Amino acid sequence: MGVNMIYLDNAATTKVKQEVVEAMMPYLTEQYYNPSSLYSPAVKIKEDIERARKIVGNFIKASGNEIYFCSGGSEANCFAISGFCHYWNTLKVRPVIITSTIEHKSILECVKNMIADVYYVDVDNNGLIKSDTLSELLNDISLWGLPLLCSFQLANNEIGTIQDIKKISNIIWQHGGLLHVDAVQAFGQLPIDVDEMGIDMLSVSGHKIGCPKGTGFLYIRKGITISPMIYGSQMDGKRGGTENVPYIMGMAKAVELCDISENKTREMRSKRDYFIGCLEAKFGCKLNGSQIRLPNNINITFPQNITGETFLYTLDISEIQIGVGSACNSQSIEPSYVLKAIGLSDEEAMRTIRITISDDITYEDIDYVISEIDKAIKLIEI
Amino acid sequence: MGVNMIYLDNAATTKVKQEVVEAMMPYLTEQYYNPSSLYSPAVKIKEDIERARKIVGNFIKASGNEIYFCSGGSEANCFAISGFCHYWNTLKVRPVIITSTIEHKSILECVKNMIADVYYVDVDNNGLIKSDTLSELLNDISLWGLPLLCSFQLANNEIGTIQDIKKISNIIWQHGGLLHVDAVQAFGQLPIDVDEMGIDMLSVSGHKIGCPKGTGFLYIRKGITISPMIYGSQMDGKRGGTENVPYIMGMAKAVELCDISENKTREMRSKRDYFIGCLEAKFGCKLNGSQIRLPNNINITFPQNITGETFLYTLDISEIQIGVGSACNSQSIEPSYVLKAIGLSDEEAMRTIRITISDDITYEDIDYVISEIDKAIKLIEI
Repeated sequence: MGVNMIYLDNAATTKVKQEVVEAMMPYLTEQYYNPSSLYSPAVKIKEDIERARKIVGNFIKASGNEIYFCSGGSEANCFAISGFCHYWNTLKVRPVIITSTIEHKSILECVKNMIADVYYVDVDNNGLIKSDTLSELLNDISLWGLPLLCSFQLANNEIGTIQDIKKISNIIWQHGGLLHVDAVQAFGQLPIDVDEMGIDMLSVSGHKIGCPKGTGFLYIRKGITISPMIYGSQMDGKRGGTENVPYIMGMAKAVELCDISENKTREMRSKRDYFIGCLEAKFGCKLNGSQIRLPNNINITFPQNITGETFLYTLDISEIQIGVGSACNSQSIEPSYVLKAIGLSDEEAMRTIRITISDDITYEDIDYVISEIDKAIKLIEI
Repeated sequence: MGVNMIYLDNAATTKVKQEVVEAMMPYLTEQYYNPSSLYSPAVKIKEDIERARKIVGNFIKASGNEIYFCSGGSEANCFAISGFCHYWNTLKVRPVIITSTIEHKSILECVKNMIADVYYVDVDNNGLIKSDTLSELLNDISLWGLPLLCSFQLANNEIGTIQDIKKISNIIWQHGGLLHVDAVQAFGQLPIDVDEMGIDMLSVSGHKIGCPKGTGFLYIRKGITISPMIYGSQMDGKRGGTENVPYIMGMAKAVELCDISENKTREMRSKRDYFIGCLEAKFGCKLNGSQIRLPNNINITFPQNITGETFLYTLDISEIQIGVGSACNSQSIEPSYVLKAIGLSDEEAMRTIRITISDDITYEDIDYVISEIDKAIKLIEI
C-alpha cells in the first residue's frame, strides 16, 4: 500500500486497533478453553467474559448481565426483532412492529419477514423521524392492546443523522411499547445512557469501533423477555453457542479505548466541517442529512454529472477509499433508499458519496483528498 | 502452566492451531476492509471469502456457494431448524420436525420452541437411532403431506456414537423429507460426502478443528429454501452481517489442515483403544456408546463410588482437563440426558467422565493420566 493511502470509509468498517489484537491474542493461543468447562483454566475464562460484559455494560449505563455478546450488529438487530416477534408468535399473538424507512437493511429485511403487523414512519428531509406521524400511528394502534416494538437507529449509517431517541422513547413508552435502538453507527461516537434515553434494547457492532468483524452485542433491559434466536446455555440461556472469547475480550478493550470526550468529539467535528466546507466551496456539493449528525459523517451530492461510483473507482486508483450508499448495499446498483427517503431524486442519489473519517486524519490529508477529487472531476469531465 | 498439562477435552474445544492464527493475522491487520465495499482492496477480500467457501465446500463434496459461514455450530443448527420452520410458518403451515433424544442442546432447545409438530426418535443402548421407529413414525406422518425436516447428529458429542446417516437419509428421502445433520463433532474426524450420504443441510463448528470459537458454517443443498435468521445482503442474502473475515480465512486453513487419512485415523483409534483398555483393566470402567465411535472419544463409567465431577476437579489440580457430560451442559448439575437415554441410571451417569484426545497425545501421556486417576481414586476412597 502506498504512503498516501487514505481510508475514508469508517462507517463501513474500521481498522482493527493494535491494542484490541493484543487483548485478543492470549485467547487465540494458550487461553483456548471452553468457558463452560468446569476445570480452573476454563473458569478463569468465564470470569473474563463476565468482566467484559461489565465493562461494556458500564459504557451504556447498563449492568453486565444485560449485555448479550453475539456475532455483530446485524445479528443483534435480528435477535431483537425476531426474538420479540417469535416470543409472541408462540403465544399465538401477532405483534406490532414500527420502524422507519431509513433503517439498516438487517432491520428492514427482518421486519418484512416477521409474522407481525409492520408500520413505517417517514423521515423529514434531514432524515429525522416524524414524531407527529409516530404519535398518530401509536394513538391508533394502542387501542388494539397488542404487544408493540419500535425500532429506530440512533444515527443513520448513510447520512449520519442523529435521532432524538429520548423524545421518541417518551412517545413509545406512553403507549406501553418497547423501543429497540440500532446504535451500530453511533456507539463509540456519542454517549449512550439506556435509562436516561429510554432504550429497552440496543444493538452494537464491534467492527465499527476497532474490533474485528463478527462481534457485537444486544443490550436487553432486565425484565424484558424475548425468545433466543440461537439456543443454548451460554449468555444466561439467551444467546447460545460457545462464546467467541477472543473477540469478546477485544470488544471490551475497544470500548475502553472509546474516547467520547467533548474535546475529542469537537476535534472530529472540526475536521468533518472543514472537509464539508472544502467540498461545498470548491465543487458546489450539497450536504445530505441533518446538521445534528455523527461527528465523522459526510454525505454529499455533487452538482457535476459524475456518479458516486465513478468517484469511488477513480479515487481507488489513488488509494483513497470512500463509500457510496452503505457498504452493505453497495453491491446493489439501485440508488440508495435512504437518500430517496430524504427527498433526493434517483439521479441526485447516484451523484452522491459518503465520506466517514477516523480520528487520525489530518487537515493535510483532507486537502490532498480535495485535490484528488478535483483531478478526478477534471479527468472525467474532459 | 506446568510441563505435564494434558488436555483431554477436545470435544469441548480445541487449541487454536498456529497456522490458523497465521492465516487470520493479515485480516486482523492491514486487510481490514469491508468485503462488501467496491474499492479494489475490499474486492480482493470478497474474493478471498469466495475461495474459502470453495475450500470448505470441497471438503464435504459441496459447492462453495452452498456454504454459509456463520458464528458457529449452534447458530448453524438453529439456522437450519428455525429457518425451515419460519419459512413454512410465514406460509401459514405448521411443519413437522423429527429429531432424536440425544441431540445437542442447541437442537433440542430450538425444536422445543418452534411453531411445529416435533417428534423424538429413541436411541438404543449404544446411542444409535432406532431406524425402525423412524420408519414407523414417517409412515404415519407422511400421510399428512406436511413439510418435514429431520435433524440427527453424525456423531454424538458425549458418547461419540456415529450414526448410519446414509441409511437414515434413505428412509427420510423416501418420505419426501429433508435431512439436517449436526456434524459439529464429526467434522475433521470422519469423511463427509453430502451427496453420497444424502445430507440436505449440515452444521459445522470451527473451534472443534483448531479454529477460534465463534465460527462455523451451514451447508444448504442448492435448491432448498429456508428463511434467513440474520437478514442482510451477505452470503448471497442467506446470512447477513459483515463477514467475520479473519475467522473465515482461519476456517479455510483449518480445513486444509484436517487429516482424515486412514493412517491418521488408525493411529488416533489405537491411542483411544489403548486408553480404554487401561481404564477397563485397571479400574473396571465400562465404556458407553457404540464401538462405531469417534476416533478421539472415550466415555466411561467408573465402578467406584466417585462422581465424574470429583474426578474432574482432582485431575484439574494435576493440570489434566477432562469433561463430564458435554461442556455446553456441564454448568448443570443434572445427570447427562444422553447417558440416561442410552440406559444409564442417574447414579451411573454421575460416575461418568468424557475423555476426548487430540492427535498429539502420546502413550506416555496416557500412562501418566492413568496413574493420576489411580492416585485420585486412592486419595478419594481413603
